[in-house]
Amino acid sequence: MVDTLKNILEQKATNLRIHSITSTSEAGSGHPTTCLSAADIVSALFFHAMRYDCTDAQNPNNDRFILSKGHAAPLLYAAYAEAGIIPVDDLATLRQVDSILEGHPTPRFEWTEVATGSLGQGLSLGLGMALNGKYLDKSDYRVYVLLGDGETAEGGVWEAAALASHYKLDNLIGIIDVNALGQSQRTMYAFDIDTYCQRFEAFGWQTIGIDGHDYDEILPALEKAKASNDKPTMIVAKTYKGKGVSFLENEDNWHGKAVEKGEQLDKALAELGPLHTDVPIQIQTPNPIDNQTSTASACEPPEYASDEEVATRGGYGIGLAKLGKANPNVVALDGDTKNSTYSEQFMESYPDRFFEMFIAEQNLVGAGIGLAKRGKIPYVSTFAAFLSRGYDQIRMSAISQANIKYAGSHCGVSIGEDGPSQMGLEDLAMFRAIPDAVVLYPSDAVAAERLVAEAAAHEGIVYIRTSRPKTAILYDATESFPIGGSKVVKKSDDDKVSVVTAGVTLHEALKAHEILAAEGTAIRVIDLYSIKPVDTETLLAAAAETNNAIITVEDHYPEGGLGDAVLDAVATEDIRVHKLAVTGIPRSGKPDELLELHGISANAIVQKVKAIVC
Amino acid sequence: MVDTLKNILEQKATNLRIHSITSTSEAGSGHPTTCLSAADIVSALFFHAMRYDCTDAQNPNNDRFILSKGHAAPLLYAAYAEAGIIPVDDLATLRQVDSILEGHPTPRFEWTEVATGSLGQGLSLGLGMALNGKYLDKSDYRVYVLLGDGETAEGGVWEAAALASHYKLDNLIGIIDVNALGQSQRTMYAFDIDTYCQRFEAFGWQTIGIDGHDYDEILPALEKAKASNDKPTMIVAKTYKGKGVSFLENEDNWHGKAVEKGEQLDKALAELGPLHTDVPIQIQTPNPIDNQTSTASACEPPEYASDEEVATRGGYGIGLAKLGKANPNVVALDGDTKNSTYSEQFMESYPDRFFEMFIAEQNLVGAGIGLAKRGKIPYVSTFAAFLSRGYDQIRMSAISQANIKYAGSHCGVSIGEDGPSQMGLEDLAMFRAIPDAVVLYPSDAVAAERLVAEAAAHEGIVYIRTSRPKTAILYDATESFPIGGSKVVKKSDDDKVSVVTAGVTLHEALKAHEILAAEGTAIRVIDLYSIKPVDTETLLAAAAETNNAIITVEDHYPEGGLGDAVLDAVATEDIRVHKLAVTGIPRSGKPDELLELHGISANAIVQKVKAIVC
Repeated sequence: MVDTLKNILEQKATNLRIHSITSTSEAGSGHPTTCLSAADIVSALFFHAMRYDCTDAQNPNNDRFILSKGHAAPLLYAAYAEAGIIPVDDLATLRQVDSILEGHPTPRFEWTEVATGSLGQGLSLGLGMALNGKYLDKSDYRVYVLLGDGETAEGGVWEAAALASHYKLDNLIGIIDVNALGQSQRTMYAFDIDTYCQRFEAFGWQTIGIDGHDYDEILPALEKAKASNDKPTMIVAKTYKGKGVSFLENEDNWHGKAVEKGEQLDKALAELGPLHTDVPIQIQTPNPIDNQTSTASACEPPEYASDEEVATRGGYGIGLAKLGKANPNVVALDGDTKNSTYSEQFMESYPDRFFEMFIAEQNLVGAGIGLAKRGKIPYVSTFAAFLSRGYDQIRMSAISQANIKYAGSHCGVSIGEDGPSQMGLEDLAMFRAIPDAVVLYPSDAVAAERLVAEAAAHEGIVYIRTSRPKTAILYDATESFPIGGSKVVKKSDDDKVSVVTAGVTLHEALKAHEILAAEGTAIRVIDLYSIKPVDTETLLAAAAETNNAIITVEDHYPEGGLGDAVLDAVATEDIRVHKLAVTGIPRSGKPDELLELHGISANAIVQKVKAIVC
Repeated sequence: MVDTLKNILEQKATNLRIHSITSTSEAGSGHPTTCLSAADIVSALFFHAMRYDCTDAQNPNNDRFILSKGHAAPLLYAAYAEAGIIPVDDLATLRQVDSILEGHPTPRFEWTEVATGSLGQGLSLGLGMALNGKYLDKSDYRVYVLLGDGETAEGGVWEAAALASHYKLDNLIGIIDVNALGQSQRTMYAFDIDTYCQRFEAFGWQTIGIDGHDYDEILPALEKAKASNDKPTMIVAKTYKGKGVSFLENEDNWHGKAVEKGEQLDKALAELGPLHTDVPIQIQTPNPIDNQTSTASACEPPEYASDEEVATRGGYGIGLAKLGKANPNVVALDGDTKNSTYSEQFMESYPDRFFEMFIAEQNLVGAGIGLAKRGKIPYVSTFAAFLSRGYDQIRMSAISQANIKYAGSHCGVSIGEDGPSQMGLEDLAMFRAIPDAVVLYPSDAVAAERLVAEAAAHEGIVYIRTSRPKTAILYDATESFPIGGSKVVKKSDDDKVSVVTAGVTLHEALKAHEILAAEGTAIRVIDLYSIKPVDTETLLAAAAETNNAIITVEDHYPEGGLGDAVLDAVATEDIRVHKLAVTGIPRSGKPDELLELHGISANAIVQKVKAIVC
């Protein structure tokens, strides 16, 4: 029986190798040698160890497979072809412009759990899915993550490693394909399997070193991994890049090179032999655990006294807790800043749906993506400045089409004395650049609460920017804040210019409005709480009524933020936009001093209005 | 003698505690408890172990101290006051808007080696300085990095840990202040010193666990660390947050809180006792190793046949090698992509000045910053997309005022079949948002070479964006490319619109120019190789001659890039800007197919011109 299983898996592995080579040769590009090193492992996973429903990629109880070494995509597609899920002929369309089988896996191919290709992210993505399985869905699915050895240099791997053992994720199984060859040279540790094992062991994992081409080692290792109690497992597999083809095996300089059609390809295929047909695989199906669907209800409305001063981060915390009550699919994650972002209010009410991710923002984001792909609606909170630590993961979350919400607090110079290292000053630029991201910047706590709820109702990436200082309540609890909208907060028939802003600088604009009104100058003030998409209609209408002149103000650097969003909206009109933003690298000081010093205070707005109007 | 040393260090430590508390109480904010846990260690370092020239912060042979836990800034300033370098009275100016003693250390205070405050970066910064000391300057200085325990959850710490042992940096000594309390809760490991030791040991470090408040353990540990051969050392110190003041010591909820002036402060100071005066410290001075200053010469000019096709990344590689010849201060770092970015050409000529940093971009950037602060001119190369992995470090490099150059290759959809995970599509937005960064986007190999040299001549952050596909040589080898300039490559008296672009889309614009010319429509074509600063003068002049209409084209997402840079330049003029950029999330395909599919091809430009002109 065992021999038959080995024969089956060997035959399938050979098929995987053949497909990896032929598809990349057909495409003229790709990474066949990296596929060849992992083929035996992938065969064991897909045709023996993993349980999945071949008719339903999204079955919530499927074991999950994450190809952290995303450049082995041809191997992934080959596995699904050999599982009978996609036609083998489709493999020849690899990398073509109208194929779902792309160079690195994206969700355009429905069996891609989550997009990869930027190395060192898979373990975080898998961790998120494992957290979901163990603690939320209470499903018995396992999460398998296949990593390359070179990518374990990425810090993101070690963030995930620490969190995985801390959270006792025995349903998370990693396999490192140690083929010793990186992209441009040998890795730091070559075939030193022990070093990898020692490191993961030190990080609290069960570790098993194996020959990655020997089923007598692969299969028991997978069984041992499955039997783990309370610890994640890392299988460290010694392999050869290019295994199975003599002129590729363990050779330098073959990374990212396809075998040339013609003599070279023929030679490789001759060595591998013909495709094995009618290999009797049996793919286990997942346990039919009952997954209740939950419906969301409306959030309780905001409740502030009209003279209260509440920071938008405060409104965020309250709103997130209310959302937690209304929507059981919402989960929250934070990076040891919950008492600053106020995500702790969600934690206090719904501790089972809150995950403390400690000071590790790459993993904070990656785990959030994993949770989103498993049907949860994650709110990922930290300081706006520290979201920059996870920008590669944020970038990839768009490619993954993840329904994930980001919240960045402590934006701008208005945080005061802590100084520039803590100030989010480029976060609007970061998130505006993400395709289809919604970027929201509430100006009071009412708006903050409402936008938290709007974000949940929206399918896709949303970024909410919050501030540290307490500010006045501007809006009635019954106001609505649709995405893509804005609020005209001050308007008259004599407005000389439109001041478009949000956040703390909206309050500065209101002060400026008062100062100028006392001097007989009227200005329109618009709260552009939706930075992307922007309310182009309102902007154009306002400009038309105010001498085609707009002043933008933002607690953010000049590039890429609110001002640029307005510029973009009016680009093809003859409207003049004067941008006020944070000038130079900020420093420590009181919030009001810094607003003044960096040119975005009420006074700066007044001066700019006068300069334009006169 | 030993007792006297202990007494001295204890007295100094008490003074450091007093200053940490009084300065933060005066400021009304700050992190005194985090200072108190590390005071004994810092005393041992500053008044015994470290060698530095009190008259010269920049002495190239000083031991370097990096406060990775940057929020302990008051402790750092106190140490320099107790060393007699700054007046004790200055400490009372902490966090004030006109003080150089900011909330987290910045180079406005000249003794700050490098800005910190975003956790988990200090070890990378120190690694860069250690690489410089051991391999470049051949100086015997040591680099001491003080980390918090919570921040060791950051992956950046483990990237640096792996590289440090790989490069045998025995001149790098880390100390972790294990006080068990993070910002919002206990750390994952509390006082489990062994776990920290095991992890750093597994990463190839010598590790020493100590009581961080006992000089009988601190001093021998530092000696053992100094004696290390070929291995970096991590001292793991058990400490108590708030040590020295009873109501602060090891108490929750004191992170980031100053002691209130009045009763609370009086009580704390009473416990610590009065400042010790006339404590007889002896600060060792560094060895006077001769550091030769090197002068730079001019780079050899570009040399291409006029019909050659060379990718701008190719020009970058050639230019970087030529720069290496001309300027001995230039060093290069890469993240296992040197055969794609072509930084390998520098490596081949100047292997002693090239550092392979493996697949770990946070550390790639951080080490580069460390090298820059030690007087080198580092060129940090990887794929543009993967620079997003180091965006927090890039952000901090601006606060550090680092003279560092970044190069991102494989920008845009024009990389083709590898697909979106490998495409840099938001890198211009990232770098434009960095204050005073220069952002350059060469369109041919001649320009690429020249801009590599321009970058070195410029003091400050420079980003150079390069492309994968081979493109025609556009410029004569004698052309110059000043920062802030542009090239008008096609011009006539009948130009109907100005097409402003760079990189591969400049070549598309030239094709469009031909197509339109054949149809009798003339367009101006401008190579905006300097995206920041932009050549506003040329843009305004061109628009004035072309119906106040500009079309921008870029192989980048619509937000934050070349189009936004042009919009910003003409914001207050009545000039209409039509932006062409990558629409939607790209996919795999041939480069030409993708340019077409995503709306930035010659054809797309032709269509846009016709839509505007007609």
